[in-house]
Amino acid sequence: MEAQDKEDKARVLALLQEALVDGTPEQVSRAVKDLHPAQLADLLESLPAEDRARLWKLTDSSVKGDILVEAHGEVRRQLIEESALDELADAVKRLDLDELSDIYDELPPEVIEAVQRAMDGQRRTRFEVVRTYPEHTAGGLMDVDAISVRPDVTLRMVLNYLARYRAEYRQMPEHTDAVMVVDLGGRYLGSLALTDLVSLDPEEKVQDVMDRKAEPVTADATAAHVARLFQDRDLVSAAVVDEQGKLIGRITVDDVVDFIREEAEHSVMATAGLDEEADTFAPAIASARRRAIWLGINLVNALAAAWVISLFDHTIDRLVALAVLMPVVASMGGVAGMQSLTLVIRGIALDQVKGANRWQLLKKELSVGAINGILWALAVGLITSLWFENFNLALVFGAALTLNLLAGVATGTLIPMALQRLRIDPALAGGVILVALTDAFGFFVFLGLAATFLV
Amino acid sequence: MEAQDKEDKARVLALLQEALVDGTPEQVSRAVKDLHPAQLADLLESLPAEDRARLWKLTDSSVKGDILVEAHGEVRRQLIEESALDELADAVKRLDLDELSDIYDELPPEVIEAVQRAMDGQRRTRFEVVRTYPEHTAGGLMDVDAISVRPDVTLRMVLNYLARYRAEYRQMPEHTDAVMVVDLGGRYLGSLALTDLVSLDPEEKVQDVMDRKAEPVTADATAAHVARLFQDRDLVSAAVVDEQGKLIGRITVDDVVDFIREEAEHSVMATAGLDEEADTFAPAIASARRRAIWLGINLVNALAAAWVISLFDHTIDRLVALAVLMPVVASMGGVAGMQSLTLVIRGIALDQVKGANRWQLLKKELSVGAINGILWALAVGLITSLWFENFNLALVFGAALTLNLLAGVATGTLIPMALQRLRIDPALAGGVILVALTDAFGFFVFLGLAATFLV
Repeated sequence: MEAQDKEDKARVLALLQEALVDGTPEQVSRAVKDLHPAQLADLLESLPAEDRARLWKLTDSSVKGDILVEAHGEVRRQLIEESALDELADAVKRLDLDELSDIYDELPPEVIEAVQRAMDGQRRTRFEVVRTYPEHTAGGLMDVDAISVRPDVTLRMVLNYLARYRAEYRQMPEHTDAVMVVDLGGRYLGSLALTDLVSLDPEEKVQDVMDRKAEPVTADATAAHVARLFQDRDLVSAAVVDEQGKLIGRITVDDVVDFIREEAEHSVMATAGLDEEADTFAPAIASARRRAIWLGINLVNALAAAWVISLFDHTIDRLVALAVLMPVVASMGGVAGMQSLTLVIRGIALDQVKGANRWQLLKKELSVGAINGILWALAVGLITSLWFENFNLALVFGAALTLNLLAGVATGTLIPMALQRLRIDPALAGGVILVALTDAFGFFVFLGLAATFLV
Repeated sequence: MEAQDKEDKARVLALLQEALVDGTPEQVSRAVKDLHPAQLADLLESLPAEDRARLWKLTDSSVKGDILVEAHGEVRRQLIEESALDELADAVKRLDLDELSDIYDELPPEVIEAVQRAMDGQRRTRFEVVRTYPEHTAGGLMDVDAISVRPDVTLRMVLNYLARYRAEYRQMPEHTDAVMVVDLGGRYLGSLALTDLVSLDPEEKVQDVMDRKAEPVTADATAAHVARLFQDRDLVSAAVVDEQGKLIGRITVDDVVDFIREEAEHSVMATAGLDEEADTFAPAIASARRRAIWLGINLVNALAAAWVISLFDHTIDRLVALAVLMPVVASMGGVAGMQSLTLVIRGIALDQVKGANRWQLLKKELSVGAINGILWALAVGLITSLWFENFNLALVFGAALTLNLLAGVATGTLIPMALQRLRIDPALAGGVILVALTDAFGFFVFLGLAATFLV
């Protein structure tokens, strides 16, 4: 199935690129017909910028709004730039309010004005509620189209209400797996699952069968908290309430899935100093500029380590084997430290590292460092004795390796804890700080020991 | 909300550890009452092994099955070991078949026997179907409790059928957002959304309102394909069919969310050579043993780089500044390469890198490397001229830096493409191979140029 899927995609891409080079617009349209907006967005992201612009021009306007929502950062910006203003306004008017909110700030002012004009009073009020909350909060994730009923009505009355709702709005809110139960003041009381609604006696009252344990989230809860809740409780949707407990919307699992995916991408990309919105096929100049900063930071670190080495240039001058072996000490400390760092960052993300745990964890990581330090010190000691026929050098090398492994695991454990307190993203800054420390310390301890005991 | 949640958790943990140290079993139970199985699993994972064992003994048997499903690798193994056989059999008998299947192989033989004995004929047949498929396929993710109806009945008849189903089984299958429509031979035709069932005219026929576009997945589709499909189409559930198109089960979004989370963890942990099931609070010896292998691989690489340096020990002997600067060359190539590597691994995961794209991407990454190489070569050249007052050294340093940056982005781009062909996980092996190459090449090109032009 997957293989087939990939083949399909490669075929579509081949057909499409051929059509874009020397085909008619009809051939292009034929190549991408039947594709879902998410697949089209994906395809647009896989194309170089010029082909992307041409395919966009030929894309059916009715799906352009959904494609913009699915597309990532720079690709989205390009597509918005390439669109005619009136067409763009038409495309985004039809979006769900939470989706509109996600791309709203990137739209040109003329389009925003047109969208605002097209909203009726209720829709504008609701949109303003959605806009109040930052993107990565429950309020930012929520839809405002929750269906709500009173607790003292029967299931039959609910069914009738839903039939009227359907007749009026032509469709039900997406991912409705439950209707919300609220009191006269609009306060959230619980939820009535559709599975109950379709299978229980229609004469039952809502208050007797509703799920009172379906806890709501408050609008200012973080998206990470919401994601955890959905994952732990296997939810499809959850009610969102304000500080007074009044129902203001609901979050559905599809938005949570998108958030989880984005977070996962972020944590992988940040460790290499990349923006998760970086366009794989961006122009080289744009990519180079963004990455130059990261390389510059690493250059400063590397030069700091070089300065440490330069303090011992007389020592190296007398025993050049030190220059041969010193990168080994630095690199092993870095690798051991990255293991601790990765483990602790994950522990923090899973909320398992806190309070008294911290010291247990540090103690454990130090033990791991000591065990592996001694183990590999013996190995490299043996190798060095044979290679350079210098037992004292082997002793110094082994001791420095053990010390740098210990320094690596200690800093790897403590850095994310400290960064968390300072509210700095450990995925972004952790590795850089760690390698700077293990490099400098590795060179210092190895060359320092050598200067003291060997030459 | 999140802050409050964290405080709650810290409070529970503090209360619990106090109770575990010198409290009665009642105090322990009180500290963890009201916690959901996923939260209990999380709490158990946050405790040191002895406390974990004591809390497990005091945990209510009715939730032990769900906790085992939620717990990760080593913690799960410990909890299974600490359980009495009959209690364990009782706990897992109640699980959903797909959940039972996930932990089945870790259960002791006596428990497996007891579980098998307790299954009735239908359940055993269904379980055997689930067990046929590997864990990371649609078949391995699916539940076998799909409700299905014929296309020629009315919605009212479906409602009556669901009422009878509910009366007989006391509950509906989890996450039922739609009932499946099948023909007389059991072949999947489409799905009937509950939102339609509750809001359309009950006299309508299923075949007139069912969603024929709700495509099924085949049981052997990979979990990654399923995750993509759920994400692209915003699905809550999907039908699973066999090769003949017969309905055999359904996949629900909660299992897809778990898969996405696991994949994300894997890609972060693998880059540091860690197993995503590694227990953060595992005993030091166990952790040290697992990580030693990774350190050993890196040691071999570091020694290979050291060997490259040793080829030029006479050169270094004559100009010790080379020893000072050479780690800078190696490290910058590694950092630039990691950026390309991370970007390409992500592009492959998102299925954006294929066919003609590959060469465009390589060309682009080489351009990025060249731009940044020249930029930082000028910077380090200037710094070196001033620091060592040696213009020729600055020239060699700058040239080596540019060449190693180019080598870094080229290997960073090509390695994941090659590993993908060889079916090796690029997240696990990519970084190691890259750093081995950029270190060795960095030292070689810098010291080699110096040997040729400087000394």
